[in-house]
Amino acid sequence: MIIGNVVGNVWATRKNDSLIGLKLMIVRRLDVCRGEETESFVAVDLVGAGIGERVLVTTGSAARQSPELSNTLVDAAIIGIIDEVEVQAEM
Amino acid sequence: MIIGNVVGNVWATRKNDSLIGLKLMIVRRLDVCRGEETESFVAVDLVGAGIGERVLVTTGSAARQSPELSNTLVDAAIIGIIDEVEVQAEM
Amino acid sequence: MIIGNVVGNVWATRKNDSLIGLKLMIVRRLDVCRGEETESFVAVDLVGAGIGERVLVTTGSAARQSPELSNTLVDAAIIGIIDEVEVQAEM
Amino acid sequence: MIIGNVVGNVWATRKNDSLIGLKLMIVRRLDVCRGEETESFVAVDLVGAGIGERVLVTTGSAARQSPELSNTLVDAAIIGIIDEVEVQAEM
Amino acid sequence: MIIGNVVGNVWATRKNDSLIGLKLMIVRRLDVCRGEETESFVAVDLVGAGIGERVLVTTGSAARQSPELSNTLVDAAIIGIIDEVEVQAEM
Repeated sequence: MIIGNVVGNVWATRKNDSLIGLKLMIVRRLDVCRGEETESFVAVDLVGAGIGERVLVTTGSAARQSPELSNTLVDAAIIGIIDEVEVQAEM
Repeated sequence: MIIGNVVGNVWATRKNDSLIGLKLMIVRRLDVCRGEETESFVAVDLVGAGIGERVLVTTGSAARQSPELSNTLVDAAIIGIIDEVEVQAEM
Repeated sequence: MIIGNVVGNVWATRKNDSLIGLKLMIVRRLDVCRGEETESFVAVDLVGAGIGERVLVTTGSAARQSPELSNTLVDAAIIGIIDEVEVQAEM
Repeated sequence: MIIGNVVGNVWATRKNDSLIGLKLMIVRRLDVCRGEETESFVAVDLVGAGIGERVLVTTGSAARQSPELSNTLVDAAIIGIIDEVEVQAEM
Repeated sequence: MIIGNVVGNVWATRKNDSLIGLKLMIVRRLDVCRGEETESFVAVDLVGAGIGERVLVTTGSAARQSPELSNTLVDAAIIGIIDEVEVQAEM
């Protein structure tokens, strides 16, 4: 899974039927070891995430293991709101 | 999912039968946070996208969840036309 | 899917049985927007491609949707010979 | 599979039900040939790994082949604690 | 599929049961067009490969199409020993 920051929303009126009713958010990947943000992508929110929150994202067929997404064309989902990350100092 | 700009078309007369009748478009990935375009690839259009439109693309086995593509050799599909992207300023 | 140029062949006498009889070709990925060739990889040819041809390649489980490859250990296949690519000028 | 060092833990109170009871760890990928650490990501621990240990990680649908993870939204799992890596000198 | 050089072995006593009895090798990816070695990773050997040999590797769910690996947590397998690679000069 990937850690990321939710940075925005996406709206699409014309879209595949399987996406109707899903909340599409823009997530920017965060490397917690290097403390740097890298590429951004779009994920469906499954946990009520808001902009500015740090989240856990799953990608690929894993996203469709959720009953809400099982027959959709979704390849990424926000599956947790991160409370805390603890990283050891350089070992 | 990925955000991209539709930048072109691809034609192939000799191809796998499962691709017959599908519209193949060239999409260039766009990172909306950094405002930069990165690599390009080919996706099948499922929503009537045109050149110059900003689209949402799904990749991998997700693309084949669509009934039109279920038994094809397709690994990427355009699944929405993006109306608006709202990204928060640096947080 | 990916656009690439077929640049070579690979021969392997000792191999997994599921690969017997398949033609393995080296494809070098081409980014048609930036006009640059990037990494190379090996794909099974499904359309009679030859060295020097520009082709369409599918990756991952999509390749095994083809009846010829359904029970093989293949993760990439050449599925079309590209006649023409039309890319719009910078938009 | 990937070799990595376990460098931390992640806590998320609000999360998808399929993650309840799973231990989420931060792993930093290690390239044993170049001796450099690269990107970090989150994996579910299946073998009792601790911070500071070198581990083997599987990604994608492979992680869900484990009975404990078969219906979860997990896309990466720690599947071994590495005792020893033997790499030949430059050949 | 990927071409790589087998450069080492990995030992793990504590590991997921599905890995018992499998030979884990370190493979370093080779780009035959650019003549450069890139990242390394771990793959299960299915063809009796030895250190120093050039091999063909499949990744993702393709690896589990092999009967020996069908219910394992494996995401990469060595599926051929390469006898010869023929790459055309710059075209």
